[in-house]
Amino acid sequence: MANMISGGLRGLLDERQVDTPVARVVRALSGHGAVSAAQIARTTGLARSTVSTILADLKRSSLVVEVETRSPGIGRPALAHSLNPEAGTCLGVLLGRNELRVVLADVAHNIVADVAIPLERDYKPERATRMAKQAIDNIYKEHSLPYSGLLGVGFAVSAPIAASGRIMRGSQLPGWQGVDLRATFEPVLQKPIFADNESNCAALAEMMWGAAAGFENFVLFKLDLGIGGAIVANGKVLTGAAGTAGEFGHMVLDPRGDLCTCGNRGCMELSCSGTAVLGIAERRLSRSIGMAEFVKTAQAGDVGFQRLLEDAGEAAGRGLATVGTILNPGLFVISGGMAAAGEMLLAPIRSAYARHTLVKPGDGEGANPAFVTGRFLDNDNCMGAVGLVLRHHGRLT
Amino acid sequence: MANMISGGLRGLLDERQVDTPVARVVRALSGHGAVSAAQIARTTGLARSTVSTILADLKRSSLVVEVETRSPGIGRPALAHSLNPEAGTCLGVLLGRNELRVVLADVAHNIVADVAIPLERDYKPERATRMAKQAIDNIYKEHSLPYSGLLGVGFAVSAPIAASGRIMRGSQLPGWQGVDLRATFEPVLQKPIFADNESNCAALAEMMWGAAAGFENFVLFKLDLGIGGAIVANGKVLTGAAGTAGEFGHMVLDPRGDLCTCGNRGCMELSCSGTAVLGIAERRLSRSIGMAEFVKTAQAGDVGFQRLLEDAGEAAGRGLATVGTILNPGLFVISGGMAAAGEMLLAPIRSAYARHTLVKPGDGEGANPAFVTGRFLDNDNCMGAVGLVLRHHGRLT
Repeated sequence: MANMISGGLRGLLDERQVDTPVARVVRALSGHGAVSAAQIARTTGLARSTVSTILADLKRSSLVVEVETRSPGIGRPALAHSLNPEAGTCLGVLLGRNELRVVLADVAHNIVADVAIPLERDYKPERATRMAKQAIDNIYKEHSLPYSGLLGVGFAVSAPIAASGRIMRGSQLPGWQGVDLRATFEPVLQKPIFADNESNCAALAEMMWGAAAGFENFVLFKLDLGIGGAIVANGKVLTGAAGTAGEFGHMVLDPRGDLCTCGNRGCMELSCSGTAVLGIAERRLSRSIGMAEFVKTAQAGDVGFQRLLEDAGEAAGRGLATVGTILNPGLFVISGGMAAAGEMLLAPIRSAYARHTLVKPGDGEGANPAFVTGRFLDNDNCMGAVGLVLRHHGRLT
Repeated sequence: MANMISGGLRGLLDERQVDTPVARVVRALSGHGAVSAAQIARTTGLARSTVSTILADLKRSSLVVEVETRSPGIGRPALAHSLNPEAGTCLGVLLGRNELRVVLADVAHNIVADVAIPLERDYKPERATRMAKQAIDNIYKEHSLPYSGLLGVGFAVSAPIAASGRIMRGSQLPGWQGVDLRATFEPVLQKPIFADNESNCAALAEMMWGAAAGFENFVLFKLDLGIGGAIVANGKVLTGAAGTAGEFGHMVLDPRGDLCTCGNRGCMELSCSGTAVLGIAERRLSRSIGMAEFVKTAQAGDVGFQRLLEDAGEAAGRGLATVGTILNPGLFVISGGMAAAGEMLLAPIRSAYARHTLVKPGDGEGANPAFVTGRFLDNDNCMGAVGLVLRHHGRLT
């Protein structure tokens, strides 16, 4: 039964299929999880009556189930529709700097498993393939799920990725530059492969389940050891011609500043990345310190570390002010390990932003973007890799 | 007959209509002019056979006609389809600094009339409405066209415009800030009103008929007395939360630089706008000089003016390098009066861009954006205002 259902779903999720009303409804469900018929009509542009007829058919063939959703606060639960969780599964895989992480979700957006596999710093494609396959087989076995129900595998990668699936210069994974992700994983996993860089995946996760839910236009800014980011316009993550859109860390703040690894001078990354900030902290401490401890120490009252956070926020806010002048988004999601500092980081970002951007707080109507902390500071990229499959974004063909 | 046809077209172009396959085909034709059935299938996502059936029906009811198109070079003309030019007309109106300009086009994308009406520098909404109505009535009378066939009027405005149609701070039209464009023009023109700022309109014109034809992702950079710009992502012009996306002139190049009218310091506009560049030229000449004469003098060999163009290109290229790091577009269309200088401006833009952006020329695959001069250096905004109606972009409701 589950197999029959997922067979039907596989066909409808295939983007080479004819764009029928049924396929559009299934994709809306796949992309959004539990949604009302009215939301589906809005998303697909189909008439409400057409959506109702299609939903009734899909329920009869068990592809769709009814679920109750409850908004925050009081009020009756509302009726929503979701794909049948038994109809199929998706995998998200993070190719991290020194780990693989695998998240398994069903098509109703439930997270079934989340497994991290530590790896040596310079692991190679061949080893990653073998370890990923083994982890995936274990997960499916442990949860008694059929591998045949797996609709696709999304990869979040610490590197810019070209539309062809080739990893570009700037990869954080040593030895992976030039690797073709589809040629690497498809023969072993035997499933459709999706991929995007980790920041774009993080934006997808925040849009589907997190701080940007309901937003079609926002910017994700990720302050971790490195700086990442993503731009979402009209509900789509922008990739750019060479896959490097959203690389805010390499905006030049001072063209006569220090040399950056990217070949430019005075990049934002040199002022406010975790590597830069923790480097100063470590010189003071004469020992190494991780981001979590750094943030906790600042929050516990260390005025020196507080000043480092303030300076980092000031530099970030100045760069984001330019992003704001160019893109004028309504929302910035601040993510990554440093964002755990909350207002201690957000306040200087907000004030430097207002100081240097075009639209000023007094300009009214849509003038003040919101700055919020991301929901998934820990596993956003892996959640987003699942989202790649559910939203059919970044399919490598 | 023409009236019956345009009645049908009006219904199908109405975005509140149910999104039927027929409406999608008509919109593809309206947005793209003469296109092949294969292109329509690609744009709409409909099956080729569905498209053929719909086109046959539309031809029978005279809404669509067959046209021959010829690609540059040898080869047989290809068969394409276009909306019947008799099926309807669209108007584009530029609310310029000291003129109104009105372009009339039919739904097959033919330009029927292009009229400029000089106005005093500080003309007010009431006067603009009266003059526009009078000019439009004259045009329809002169060309013996029925006003009932007018599908909508697009406005290109030298100001940021909020989604509501309200003109924001930063307007180049004195006294227009806060004006509601729809409330101003709809009661008099009695037609659907569309509006966007002039740079976004220029981008639409270059995308529909000009240097960016066939591109879904590009940046328009306009160097005139002021600096404007627009970002096109996935075929749509980004507007931003407050309507200010693409205001590249106010990117801060030097936070300790001179004060700009926008309230920031060291904006790009202060280094390379026409106002800045011509100001230096005028001090040397001890008389005023226009952009066209300035460009011609530089091209005739004036080394001082050539240096001014080079410096302007260098500043612009440095700013665009940041735009490139953020957005990674495949194409920059350089437009506006200064772009008439051609390579004398483009060469320094290209070299400063390569020097300061993230993706370097040696990075391969999609790494080198093209820099080209716009096709419509004179009337791009007005052509784009027509495009607003044909593409149903910026409808005020």
